[in-house]
Amino acid sequence: MQFSSSLLENAVSEFAKLPGIGKKTALRLVLHLLRQQPGEVQHFSEIVARMRNEIKFCNRCFNVADGDICSICSNSLRRQEIICVVESIRDVIAIESTQQFSGTYHVLGGIISPLDGIGPDQLSIEPLVHRVQKENTEEIIFALNPNIQGDTTIYYIQKKLQAFPQVRITTIARGIAFGGELEYADEMTLARSLQNRLPVDKYVASR
Amino acid sequence: MQFSSSLLENAVSEFAKLPGIGKKTALRLVLHLLRQQPGEVQHFSEIVARMRNEIKFCNRCFNVADGDICSICSNSLRRQEIICVVESIRDVIAIESTQQFSGTYHVLGGIISPLDGIGPDQLSIEPLVHRVQKENTEEIIFALNPNIQGDTTIYYIQKKLQAFPQVRITTIARGIAFGGELEYADEMTLARSLQNRLPVDKYVASR
Repeated sequence: MQFSSSLLENAVSEFAKLPGIGKKTALRLVLHLLRQQPGEVQHFSEIVARMRNEIKFCNRCFNVADGDICSICSNSLRRQEIICVVESIRDVIAIESTQQFSGTYHVLGGIISPLDGIGPDQLSIEPLVHRVQKENTEEIIFALNPNIQGDTTIYYIQKKLQAFPQVRITTIARGIAFGGELEYADEMTLARSLQNRLPVDKYVASR
Repeated sequence: MQFSSSLLENAVSEFAKLPGIGKKTALRLVLHLLRQQPGEVQHFSEIVARMRNEIKFCNRCFNVADGDICSICSNSLRRQEIICVVESIRDVIAIESTQQFSGTYHVLGGIISPLDGIGPDQLSIEPLVHRVQKENTEEIIFALNPNIQGDTTIYYIQKKLQAFPQVRITTIARGIAFGGELEYADEMTLARSLQNRLPVDKYVASR
């Protein structure tokens, strides 16, 4: 692309660095901002800078936080003795949006994946074990993506937690998604959903 | 979506204001920035603010400019007596990227579209007429999108330019796109490309 303004070109190439944003989309975004009031664009720019400079990660659960401890860990109405282990902040947001979980989280910051060079030491697994040791944890719920890496991570952490037999360890249910069709489900999912079948009364109660 | 940080929530909603960016994409972009070095995000933020504050529009052709006159209008190697009339800055970038045009531009800033409430007064048509009056213009090339609004705009401006019979008025060729298939071309395009057929020697020369 040939630009006749270096300011425009710089702004487009900055936007094009974002994931999933190509040059054409970047240009569209920049031209959109160029049509907005200067104050609004200034506001956008400040919010972005502040976000990066001021967002911290919770000392306890590694979720995003405005201070040292996130709003979930510091909320006395949440069941602090239940920990839901997730891969990323995005999963916290997804689960929070269901409004069905009243415990706390532990964000691993990734998943064990030797092929990508990610081992247990790069994740917040050690802090999780410390947390269980220090706190009065009753249950650990694994909410990891259902794939080989997710299962490996569960297996690894579960081994580490064998020292605490009083802690109940569970994982979210895998099965046919609500609204999904049996015909199109993969064999693994279908096989697992048969193995882990539920009594109908329990199923109806959970709706 | 439920966020546990107001800084994160603000940043996501700022990104979600951009065209074509939904909440989920906005979150992905923000979490990406959160993983970058603070300096890089600061740079991004500054480039965006500078772009809006410092980019000007060329006094002559209304293209983006780093100063009062854009780099195309101030380039003595470009044929200043040829003016290519386009709808938007995006079209300037598209034509410049072909590296086949050595004249100058005139950005209308839109197109006559009564249904959208856009009349000739909201576009830079009057400045174009002044420009032709003042300058030694030889040719006006219309490079507008081939639709009713584009044709209306051409018709309107052409009428205004009747006072200058020495100026040659042309429009970019419409026809079957290179690589396109006749079978899938719409009737209007096919009909026009028949009416405006070219001698084969001219066609071969233009390749």
